[in-house]
Amino acid sequence: MAKMNENFLNLKKSYLFIEIGKRVREYIAAHPDNKIIRMGIGDVTLPLVPAVVDAMKKASEEMGVKETFRGYEDSGLGYDFLREAIAAYYKKNGAEVAAEEVLISDGAKSDCGNIGDILSADNTVLITDPAYPVYVDANVMGGRKVLFANSDESNGFAAMPDKNVHADIIYLCSPNNPTGSAYTAAQLKEWIDYALANDAVIIYDSAYEAFIHDPEIPHSIFAIEGSRKCAIEICSLSKTAGFTGVRCGYTVIPKELMLKSSDGTEHSFRDLWIRREGSKFNGVAYPVQRAAEAVFTEEGQKQTKAVIEKYMENAKVMADTFDELGIKYTGGKNSPYIWFRCPFGMGSWEFFDKLLNEAEVVGTPGEGFGKNGDGWFRLTAFNTLENTKEAMARFRKLCGKQ
Amino acid sequence: MAKMNENFLNLKKSYLFIEIGKRVREYIAAHPDNKIIRMGIGDVTLPLVPAVVDAMKKASEEMGVKETFRGYEDSGLGYDFLREAIAAYYKKNGAEVAAEEVLISDGAKSDCGNIGDILSADNTVLITDPAYPVYVDANVMGGRKVLFANSDESNGFAAMPDKNVHADIIYLCSPNNPTGSAYTAAQLKEWIDYALANDAVIIYDSAYEAFIHDPEIPHSIFAIEGSRKCAIEICSLSKTAGFTGVRCGYTVIPKELMLKSSDGTEHSFRDLWIRREGSKFNGVAYPVQRAAEAVFTEEGQKQTKAVIEKYMENAKVMADTFDELGIKYTGGKNSPYIWFRCPFGMGSWEFFDKLLNEAEVVGTPGEGFGKNGDGWFRLTAFNTLENTKEAMARFRKLCGKQ
Repeated sequence: MAKMNENFLNLKKSYLFIEIGKRVREYIAAHPDNKIIRMGIGDVTLPLVPAVVDAMKKASEEMGVKETFRGYEDSGLGYDFLREAIAAYYKKNGAEVAAEEVLISDGAKSDCGNIGDILSADNTVLITDPAYPVYVDANVMGGRKVLFANSDESNGFAAMPDKNVHADIIYLCSPNNPTGSAYTAAQLKEWIDYALANDAVIIYDSAYEAFIHDPEIPHSIFAIEGSRKCAIEICSLSKTAGFTGVRCGYTVIPKELMLKSSDGTEHSFRDLWIRREGSKFNGVAYPVQRAAEAVFTEEGQKQTKAVIEKYMENAKVMADTFDELGIKYTGGKNSPYIWFRCPFGMGSWEFFDKLLNEAEVVGTPGEGFGKNGDGWFRLTAFNTLENTKEAMARFRKLCGKQ
Repeated sequence: MAKMNENFLNLKKSYLFIEIGKRVREYIAAHPDNKIIRMGIGDVTLPLVPAVVDAMKKASEEMGVKETFRGYEDSGLGYDFLREAIAAYYKKNGAEVAAEEVLISDGAKSDCGNIGDILSADNTVLITDPAYPVYVDANVMGGRKVLFANSDESNGFAAMPDKNVHADIIYLCSPNNPTGSAYTAAQLKEWIDYALANDAVIIYDSAYEAFIHDPEIPHSIFAIEGSRKCAIEICSLSKTAGFTGVRCGYTVIPKELMLKSSDGTEHSFRDLWIRREGSKFNGVAYPVQRAAEAVFTEEGQKQTKAVIEKYMENAKVMADTFDELGIKYTGGKNSPYIWFRCPFGMGSWEFFDKLLNEAEVVGTPGEGFGKNGDGWFRLTAFNTLENTKEAMARFRKLCGKQ
């Protein structure tokens, strides 16, 4: 019989959000008339902005006309119009990248997972704990050894490098999912120095960069010196512009970044990735790329930033509640996530059940993101202001008198 | 330094269509005013049909309205409306598959490549030669041993199994790219019996099924007995409905199909694939899935079939020319491809250059698809009738008097 990739046997059984979905469905089945407020999965709720919808409709129309129809993209790496718009956006954010270094994908999750295709199983991977589960799962599937860097109370849930640990591949996410913490330029420089000292590659997930409000927090690792020799950056429009159901992301790979083969020869990371995409990917829908382009126009930026401000208003309602209750938390300032210590000294799944059963609010148990998440909990700002206020009123009632 | 996946060193240097593109660009640079007719890459040229464009526009609008906005799909495996439409289409084509067995993707190429993630490197892979280069490249990247089954003149370029060869994974494509040949039910049964005897899995690429006109040729491997225990089927709307620039495909995995781990335990192929997709994929754009759904409506079927008839009219012009010139060929009947023996006893790259330089027609050299392609050549029916007729007139002039 054909043989499976046995690394899959080392995966944890259930994906975090599947387990949450199951518990929520069971609760709803038992209480069909009650109003559940969902602040669990990190999905946006506000619709696409008009500039994006108009661009997608216009491109759909073009696809119905012989003269403007587009089939396969030549490269499958993204149309120049989009790659150039993203490079210009980086420039505004203080990072220089060339349009040819911007490689378009159907989302950050795909690239986070698929990038492993070009990496040897014989690399040691360092992942912050807690983290987005995809980093660990994709590397377990690829048979790579995974080490963890602790994000915990002592460092404000923003793990820093340990010089005594060697790693070849490092996953960082800032602003962080799930903890909402964001690295300063000085902290990123420390990670870059560590990567250069270890000849390692940083896979930098900047999916939440559009939520950064503090001018001291870099929007891109490429705003920091030395990064071009040791980092790639994966981003997406899911959170920037509500593209979770539209699927468009991008990965920036500097031309000078190298991987080595066992004889010591150096090979361009970008060329290897392009070769991978050439055989296993065929580009992103043309209407989706036009929709993505519209995000970076003046109008698109104005409209999408207004949406982010709405979510940040929710985050402020949440942060104010936690401040008032004296509950420790990170995030909520440069991030749509608030990460807080579970009240009542509870474990995070225990608090998940209490919050669901007694306040009918769905959140995400911190331990689903790693061992340092035990006793911590994530809530998202991706609901309406009205629901957020109601959820916080319920929360105050549940946790106000401990 | 971080280490590369060294299997990439075993890939051939240049992807077929990149080399063709390079030669064509050089020719155009030297002859900027001449009219080149492209019958090389298998890309469609006619626009999306109105039913599809309307559905995509309507869904784009829904995404701009709070009440109808959709973010992440729950499963990432495709919306039920599309999975059910595809299952119903299979039923019409004489194959029973359940909607839960239909898993939506951003294209056949992605699934053909990514399916390797769940397969051990320790499988022997059998690929027909010639074949779509992605099958070989994806397995070379995955470090799997690749054997070839010869498609050649002796079997009408439709390779059949050899009982003396053992394989664990078998790639079949029917109607075939590049040879245009199509397996009969009896031939498919022979492959299924071979797969069952070897405990192997067939990866069946049916991307060109919509071009089948002969009622004796099955549209799906699942129309044949025994297939549910040994096959998956990968298809796409690229050729069915001109989705090359829209990106939507699907993979059908029967619930009873198994892979084994080294201790002999059996694991559901479908569950493993779902686990893979859960960590490395986030579904297809909602407007694209609505566009795909429209293909399977009565109106959509009528419109897309009319487009296919246009391409088949071109194929007939080509077949008639080859008949007239007495050049041996396969395809052109249940396929948009014609695969013919190079005139003048030439090698296939040699004939590529002659056809480009002397007739200004671009085709695809057979040897780009494998060793049995040497001396053979592929032309596609995906151009306009006018251009096809002009190309055939030029071809007749070039090859008429040998």
